[in-house]
Amino acid sequence: MSSVLETGARTAGVLSDGREILYFDDEPGHDRTASDTRDLAPFTPGAELRRDPLTGQPVLIAAHRQTRTVSSAGGDCPLCPSRPGHPTEVPAADYHVAVFENRFPSLGGAVGGRCEVVSFSADHDRSVSGLPADRLTTIGRAWADRTAALSALPGVEQVFVFENRGAEVGATLSHPHGQIYAYPYLPPVQAAVLASARAHRAEHGGCLLCSVVAAEAAGPRVVAATDDFVAYVPEAARWPYEVHLAPLACVPDLAALPGELLPRLMALYGDVLRRFDGLFGDPTAYMACWHQAPVLHRADLSHFYVQMFTTRRAAGKWKFLASSESSAGAFINDVSPEAAAALFRAAGDRS
Amino acid sequence: MSSVLETGARTAGVLSDGREILYFDDEPGHDRTASDTRDLAPFTPGAELRRDPLTGQPVLIAAHRQTRTVSSAGGDCPLCPSRPGHPTEVPAADYHVAVFENRFPSLGGAVGGRCEVVSFSADHDRSVSGLPADRLTTIGRAWADRTAALSALPGVEQVFVFENRGAEVGATLSHPHGQIYAYPYLPPVQAAVLASARAHRAEHGGCLLCSVVAAEAAGPRVVAATDDFVAYVPEAARWPYEVHLAPLACVPDLAALPGELLPRLMALYGDVLRRFDGLFGDPTAYMACWHQAPVLHRADLSHFYVQMFTTRRAAGKWKFLASSESSAGAFINDVSPEAAAALFRAAGDRS
Repeated sequence: MSSVLETGARTAGVLSDGREILYFDDEPGHDRTASDTRDLAPFTPGAELRRDPLTGQPVLIAAHRQTRTVSSAGGDCPLCPSRPGHPTEVPAADYHVAVFENRFPSLGGAVGGRCEVVSFSADHDRSVSGLPADRLTTIGRAWADRTAALSALPGVEQVFVFENRGAEVGATLSHPHGQIYAYPYLPPVQAAVLASARAHRAEHGGCLLCSVVAAEAAGPRVVAATDDFVAYVPEAARWPYEVHLAPLACVPDLAALPGELLPRLMALYGDVLRRFDGLFGDPTAYMACWHQAPVLHRADLSHFYVQMFTTRRAAGKWKFLASSESSAGAFINDVSPEAAAALFRAAGDRS
Repeated sequence: MSSVLETGARTAGVLSDGREILYFDDEPGHDRTASDTRDLAPFTPGAELRRDPLTGQPVLIAAHRQTRTVSSAGGDCPLCPSRPGHPTEVPAADYHVAVFENRFPSLGGAVGGRCEVVSFSADHDRSVSGLPADRLTTIGRAWADRTAALSALPGVEQVFVFENRGAEVGATLSHPHGQIYAYPYLPPVQAAVLASARAHRAEHGGCLLCSVVAAEAAGPRVVAATDDFVAYVPEAARWPYEVHLAPLACVPDLAALPGELLPRLMALYGDVLRRFDGLFGDPTAYMACWHQAPVLHRADLSHFYVQMFTTRRAAGKWKFLASSESSAGAFINDVSPEAAAALFRAAGDRS
């Protein structure tokens, strides 16, 4: 059983302001050694970490990000490959998957941690759900590589891999890409899940996620499944159309996934994303968030899951996080999880 | 010192499906006894309360709300007064402030608790920030009345008064109105604040809010203040433009506020709302959320505060709750709270 980290093509480089860039290719043999021809000012992360005395939760103040790049047109896209006279964030003339430090990060510097951008394709107009199986596997391999590397950074407590797809969920660039936040603290949601996992272990002696995933795999809300993974609408879904995808066995993160399982996981991931597009018959804005096990608490929680959801609640209608959700944290879901699961199953038949 | 609950005009009635309606007037002498001429089907709240096993947090499933009324035009507005041939949710031909049970509630029935709608004016085109002082006081008196009544309902743990203003924050009706959710559980944010208050009391022997409010009142982020209340941008604001308003002294909720302080509180509340409109030179979508003390935990926490925020981060730009906020609960604020406070102070000078 080989590790997912032991395989595949990987090229490292440095951008002109000192940021790291990495290329992950579907197969070896591609030259990704082009230099960044820009003369960028030195990279200086400028966020500040404060703590809300009322909730006790950390809040990042990142005022320098107000001027960050916003682009939906292809012509000035910073994620497209560099062309003569048009240098971008990616010096190479072509690439499969590129990962680099975010030029306008919410983490790093005095705060600690790190923000990375993951471009899924050199093609500005693709989307993850339409990429071929090899590319999905390469994306997973890039995520696993970064999970291992970022988990080893001093102070990092959570490596959070995610994609915001679509302007409706706040994506400022339309080029297919995701991000990785390596938080130097445990975010509130992961802290709450850790507390639940500890309580479950104390009471039942096992893994909370193993218990939840086994129950869902045998229940009425399964969307799709393989021998090793299951995708389901969770019993208490917060969002009208929300799917969780998890391994049946305890696997803490992508870096720990046996290499032969990665293509199967990524194929199921792509299948679920296609079902989101199939729900309403057109590309659906979504968030896809990898909840990997907290770096420092693996004895209590060592089982990852992916949370995928759209902010739509019906064709042309949006689920807003209004006062109940935004200010009290009290979620109200207008769609029954069982009905949502049936629609996701049907969406797979159509796509 | 008279209670805020002992003064003012109040008329109670019943809608045709059995829901309660209450009128609060700026002064006595108005006839609000008109009957509901509609023949509505019996009122049947249909929400379900589930618990997310991962976070341990409650989630309401309210599938019956998908068909709720969405209206921004005046002609079919359910909150305008009834006219001959056009009966609405408010039977009276005119009113000052009307409160009634939500016809499409997220709470009630088997779940417990209750959802109420508070219409702030019979005039479809007004906004709270433009209402005269007497009306603001009447709104506060209605909120206080409902806080006392809903706190006494079996099982209610939190009376949450709020306004979602503007379609951008999910308001489905443009008529000036707010809502009250009487939750039969402690919502996650209030639970977190309660935990902080307990820890503060154990360590320092006093009220967390008293300590925070005193520090902010003497700090650089004050927006406006009176002898008894202060409005400030909190040190760890989650939103680019967020203001908290609180009494300097320990007051658990609106029902406990001395009557002579209510007009001063509501005047300051209106002042802050006008500053939101002044920020960008046009009406700003906002949420205004009254965090009253938890009904069952007053020994630990007995100090209310109001959280007001817009989802704008600049003119024409929105703060989206993307993956970091929506999935990890990790907030990133693109505006420094000190800079925001300076803008709020200047917005008051302009309005």
